[in-house]
Amino acid sequence: MYRKEIRVLDCTIRDGGLVNDHQFDLEFVRDVYKAVAASGADYIELGYKNSPKLLSPEQYGPWKFCDDALLEQVVEGVETDSKISVMADIGRVDMDTVRPASESPIDMIRVASYVKDIDKAITMTNVFDDMGYETCINIMAISRDQGPELEEALHQIEEESKAQVVYIVDSFGSLYQETTEHLVKMFGNILKTKEVGIHAHNNQQLAFSNTIESIIHGANYLDATVYGIGRAAGNCTLELLIGFLKNPKYDIRPILKLISDRFIDLRKELEWGYIIPYAIAGIMNEHPREAMALRDSDKKDEFLEFYDNIAGTSV
Amino acid sequence: MYRKEIRVLDCTIRDGGLVNDHQFDLEFVRDVYKAVAASGADYIELGYKNSPKLLSPEQYGPWKFCDDALLEQVVEGVETDSKISVMADIGRVDMDTVRPASESPIDMIRVASYVKDIDKAITMTNVFDDMGYETCINIMAISRDQGPELEEALHQIEEESKAQVVYIVDSFGSLYQETTEHLVKMFGNILKTKEVGIHAHNNQQLAFSNTIESIIHGANYLDATVYGIGRAAGNCTLELLIGFLKNPKYDIRPILKLISDRFIDLRKELEWGYIIPYAIAGIMNEHPREAMALRDSDKKDEFLEFYDNIAGTSV
Repeated sequence: MYRKEIRVLDCTIRDGGLVNDHQFDLEFVRDVYKAVAASGADYIELGYKNSPKLLSPEQYGPWKFCDDALLEQVVEGVETDSKISVMADIGRVDMDTVRPASESPIDMIRVASYVKDIDKAITMTNVFDDMGYETCINIMAISRDQGPELEEALHQIEEESKAQVVYIVDSFGSLYQETTEHLVKMFGNILKTKEVGIHAHNNQQLAFSNTIESIIHGANYLDATVYGIGRAAGNCTLELLIGFLKNPKYDIRPILKLISDRFIDLRKELEWGYIIPYAIAGIMNEHPREAMALRDSDKKDEFLEFYDNIAGTSV
Repeated sequence: MYRKEIRVLDCTIRDGGLVNDHQFDLEFVRDVYKAVAASGADYIELGYKNSPKLLSPEQYGPWKFCDDALLEQVVEGVETDSKISVMADIGRVDMDTVRPASESPIDMIRVASYVKDIDKAITMTNVFDDMGYETCINIMAISRDQGPELEEALHQIEEESKAQVVYIVDSFGSLYQETTEHLVKMFGNILKTKEVGIHAHNNQQLAFSNTIESIIHGANYLDATVYGIGRAAGNCTLELLIGFLKNPKYDIRPILKLISDRFIDLRKELEWGYIIPYAIAGIMNEHPREAMALRDSDKKDEFLEFYDNIAGTSV
């Protein structure tokens, strides 16, 4: 599937960091960065641009804050056209500490927003745009917010935001092909001056398939992570996406080597992927938080009781 | 997605048995049978109807042969409407030992065939049909055989075979949504008097998605296995499929309990699922045999070398 407008955004460190509170060491992040850059991914997202005054640096590792000096250490000496992205959470960024794009290794800032917070997202992206950054708005939990509020938010973004890209974020891994098609078409119809992106979660083993479905219906910005690492069930895998795109600009080989060298061992320490409580949360269109709590408990494999609690049925 | 013609066929023991040469013990098979029957699956496939004269009973367990007396032990005392299916390989069945359906616990026999063997498959299904069995033809390795030979085979089946169902079998886990749509429509257009089925493999995490895609375009017979067990990357999972169908005739709960009780431990002993060499084989449209050999070797996690060997490139 070749289309020159397609952009692959690797968010291995950013979304993968949600599994371990962003406690990766610099050498690991450098290894990921080098391999993903060699694969030709257009953007590499290294974490969040949150403020250490608003989130504890004792609890969270450095990729939760993405200090410019830290990112300089990641990219130092690596020749690549891949751009650097970070994510900003509404209410967790100290805007005064963000330097202009010309002084920062960061190229793009993506603001994560629920539909209800879209005013704040528009304001933030416009500030970042004025500072010289490329910007995106990532609309989270989309499977819960498909009503008229979503359409209104999209119209408002189209009219008021300078963001170049607006992402459909299937936070709950709950979309199927038909819902994905519906959303991509709705986004495309309203956002006439912007690109549409897709960030899929893999609760129901549909992250890759929903990404393909989004490409078919016009989305050009595609999120993926190495070996699918990401919160709970994880994400669309970068290796499958590159295998599908069959675009000579991308190369699966550095990613395969990185998985062998780094991710097989990492997966023994950290948990993500097709795990039944996350599948249940996806089927039920629920946030994975209860499933994550279950996996941290001594009932981690008691799936029927978990299902009955979520479904509100009793045994 | 409710459609009354839909039939779910669980092939946990049959396809899952390809992971361990069908060496499950009777108690395990009984547990699977009871839970899957309680879930409302329409058919439960318990193995192959091959001849112990043609395949070694020392190498293979009893579910490779599915003696009627053995199957009687599985179903004994279980009240259910689920029917029993077995698979027959061309050239491996001693037709003289198959009793009439009226004397057997087996309701349906599915003949697995490559396009090149379709004459033999038609002959076999017609003999089984005359003996009173429901019959299917499962066309294997479909991603390699999409040319005019396939169309010719389908016309021949439509005209000469008594089989009620013809399956698309994505043996290599290589189909995407668009190829699946194309095949289901082609099958439906030619096989006007028969139902279309889908048996998907999960090399690229697309087995469930391709099953949904097949439903959308008219396939009514759907294969799945508990927790996706099956050769190499495994199959469409029964739990996700039931979750999607949202048909009150099916119940996910016994399957969740069965996974907790049996499959979490089993997965520690046997390997299937999203494993990079199987993903590579799927991307490359290759049989998983080289990937299975790699996983049995001391180079099991050396993915780049494997890729380069398959791709014919050198480092």
